[in-house]
Formats: sequence, structure tokens, C-alpha cells
Amino acid sequence: MLSKKQTSWINALKVKKYRKKQEAFLVEGEKNVAELLDSSFSILGIYALESWINKNKYVKDIYPQIIHTISPKELKSISNLQTPNEVAAVVQLPDTAAEKMIIEHLLKQPLKHHVLALDNIRDPGNLGTIIRIADWFGIQQIICSPTCVDVYSPKVVQATMGSIFHIEVVYSDLQQVFEKKGQLPVYAALLQGDDIFEADFSQKGFILMGNESQGIQQKYFKYMDKAITISRKGKAESLNVAVATSIICAVACR
Amino acid sequence: MLSKKQTSWINALKVKKYRKKQEAFLVEGEKNVAELLDSSFSILGIYALESWINKNKYVKDIYPQIIHTISPKELKSISNLQTPNEVAAVVQLPDTAAEKMIIEHLLKQPLKHHVLALDNIRDPGNLGTIIRIADWFGIQQIICSPTCVDVYSPKVVQATMGSIFHIEVVYSDLQQVFEKKGQLPVYAALLQGDDIFEADFSQKGFILMGNESQGIQQKYFKYMDKAITISRKGKAESLNVAVATSIICAVACR
Repeated sequence: MLSKKQTSWINALKVKKYRKKQEAFLVEGEKNVAELLDSSFSILGIYALESWINKNKYVKDIYPQIIHTISPKELKSISNLQTPNEVAAVVQLPDTAAEKMIIEHLLKQPLKHHVLALDNIRDPGNLGTIIRIADWFGIQQIICSPTCVDVYSPKVVQATMGSIFHIEVVYSDLQQVFEKKGQLPVYAALLQGDDIFEADFSQKGFILMGNESQGIQQKYFKYMDKAITISRKGKAESLNVAVATSIICAVACR
Repeated sequence: MLSKKQTSWINALKVKKYRKKQEAFLVEGEKNVAELLDSSFSILGIYALESWINKNKYVKDIYPQIIHTISPKELKSISNLQTPNEVAAVVQLPDTAAEKMIIEHLLKQPLKHHVLALDNIRDPGNLGTIIRIADWFGIQQIICSPTCVDVYSPKVVQATMGSIFHIEVVYSDLQQVFEKKGQLPVYAALLQGDDIFEADFSQKGFILMGNESQGIQQKYFKYMDKAITISRKGKAESLNVAVATSIICAVACR
């Protein structure tokens, strides 16, 4: 059973302001919750249909206090999905103090993996897809400019297909990060640059991707070490930013 | 002004059955209509706000009979978009007899470009994105299995961003096509195959992509000449089919 108070507490998590205030976000569906359970994120509540609880009995043993059996109608009342998928969980927002430490750590050492730097990515589906792509190619950190869509918004979480629990996503002023980057290279995706298949990605660095319609802002140009391009052979005017990111990651991380 | 009859004739085009019956489909938005006007597709009607007509005066000169100035409210009544974008056009469906000729033509000769073969792609956004990607990389034909989503459905048309007017998309039983392929190779995207960066794509052929959740059906295995894989370095379970197609096209068409 879900009380009215619980329902409105969960539904408030659709809005960034309340996610910040309640220090929590919502995760939905079998796949995402399975990845959550496998992660080190703190779970505040699990709301599941009986069918899900029967398939995942061990979860009730681990979290007896916070697991709630709910009806399909109750699940629908808290879900952001057109077709709610058996289970939802409320998860504690990661500590933002950790964000600074992650960035400082990155800047202190040669990088083991490329780091994605995203400038002003606005579409939740794009950010979620980029996180999933990064996770496929073994990228472990993504730095988002503060104007990027919130990674804990329901649509982003959903589009990551669980990869949000494998990757560190932090928000920071990119200029401040690049000011301290030292020898770490910045590879920037531009319409006029070297063909990605000619570029040398052997030194690990930042892969900078720009906004869906405006691309990379001029203020970052002075930090770029290598402008790279996915050469066009046909007539399409542009590539979607998630698609472009996937191609660059495939080549840079091969 | 739009009559009631016109409005319902246009709205019927949301449904595949009526697109076939009326032999027409709907195209929306400035970008898509600009590409339409640049193409050889037959236009049956243009429905535009005054603002669009003022910006595109030449169109009224070319199509005086079929251009209609409509109000924002009327545009909304025929639009499939959340935010209707100035103009919509009704376009004649390409002749299906041409489909057979396109395929026969492909099979007769060595290919100049790779051809995408799509098996059972169900999501309109995926098909539209794949068409846009193909157009970027200079692919000129896509063969869809009959179970793929209809390319003339509003969501697919929208997602192509005008590339639907640059590429020949035909529907055909893939087995029948592959039976007659002779020496043309079939490159198939599978989870276990050669790394795409090791594969030799120099002989132009078919790039076969499978369904979003089931992948490529077993019945096609006997036609495959090369199984290729986008190697995973991280933990994500899968890549979206449009993302996978983009990476394979980038490498195969470089």
C-alpha cells in the first residue's frame, strides 16, 4: 500500500527542484532496478508488484524495511513510463562534494580512459543515450556543463538503460576544468577538423561534444588540442549528437 | 482555409492503411519541406502559415494550385508534432513498382555503395535516425523487411530530418534478395563476430542489421559472409540499433 504522502513524495521527484530538496531520484523498470541493486547507490525505497517480488525474493531479505508491495494501479500513479514495468525505486542523490573530488582526481594524473565533456546537452534522450554509449566503450567519467539537462531526470535515467549506475557523471564549469588540464589533450568534435580515422587518440584526454543545435561554444576553442570531424559522404545536413558521440567513442576507444 | 473534408483526408494519413488507400503521406516542418521541395517527389498539397509563405514566395509561383494559407489553429489540427512548425505538405507515395526495379538493378551489378538491409526494425525513431545516418555516409539504398515499421509513418518521416528525400527505401523479403545476391557480400552485425576495425569492407555489399531486441534472425545466417561486432570495453549490455548502425556505417564507408 502506498499512502497519499508517499505518492506525492515520489511524484515530486519528477521536478529537479524537489530532487535537490529531497536528495533523491526515481529509477524505474526491471533492467534499471537490477543495475541499481548491483551498484553502490543508496536505496531509500523499493515499490514493486507482487510478480517482481516473487522473482526477486532475495531483495526482500536484504531490504525488509524499505520494500513495498504495490498494485499495478499504484505503480501507474508514481510512474513516468507509458507502460510501467513492475518496479520503481527511490535512490539517494550522490553527494555533490564527491563531484569536486572526482574532477580533482582526474586532473592530477594521466588518464586511464578518455573522459567525455558535454557542453549544454539539452535533450534527456540524448544525454541518456550518451551515458549508455560511454558505458559500452569503457569510458568511466562524464563531465557535464551546468546547463546540461539534469542526469537524474526520469527520461535521462530511463534512456541510460542502467548505465547511470556504472559511470560517474559530474557537473562542472568546463572552462574551470580545462584551465587546470595541463598536458591532458582536448579532442573537440567540430564540422571542420581532421577526419576521425586520421586522428591519433592514443593520449587519453577529454572528448568535448557541443550542444544539439549550436555545437561547441567559441569560449572553449582556446583549450582544444585537436579538432576532429566525422566526414560526410552524402547529403544529410547533420548527425544527432548521440550518434556523433558513439562514432567518436568507437574510434577513440578502440 | 481548410475544409472539414481536407482536414480529415490529411489526418487519415496517420494510419498506414489510409496512406496506402490515399497513396499519400504527410511531411511537416520547415526543414523536411525544404528537402521535399528540392526532391523529385510529387507534392499534392502544401498547407502553410502566412509567415512561411512570405519567406518562400517562389513556392507559390511554382505551385499556385495546391498551396493553402492556413491559420496556426488549422495547422495544429493536422499536425503530428507537439509544436507544429509553420508548414505541412501532402506527398504522393512512391510507386511500389519502382521498388522491384531498384532491387533488380542493385542485384545486377557490382555495388557502388554499401546497401543497408534492415530486418524487423520496429521503432519509428530508430528507422528515421538510421535513414539520416545512411544519408550522412553516402549510402543510397535501404532494403527493409516487410515487418519493419512503415517509412512513411509521421514519426519516421520526422526523424529522418529530410533524408527520406535523398535515399531510396524499399520493402522486400530479405531472403529473396539474398538468394539472388551472387558474389555481393553480406556483412552482419552480431554480438560475436570480428571486430569492425579488423573487418575488410572494401567489397561493397549488404550491411544487415537486426531487430531492436531479437537481433538478426537465424534464417539469414546462411547468407552471411562476414559477422562483425562493435567490441565492448565497458559494462553496458547493448547498444541501440541506430547507434550500432552509425558506427558500422562510419567504419564501412570511410
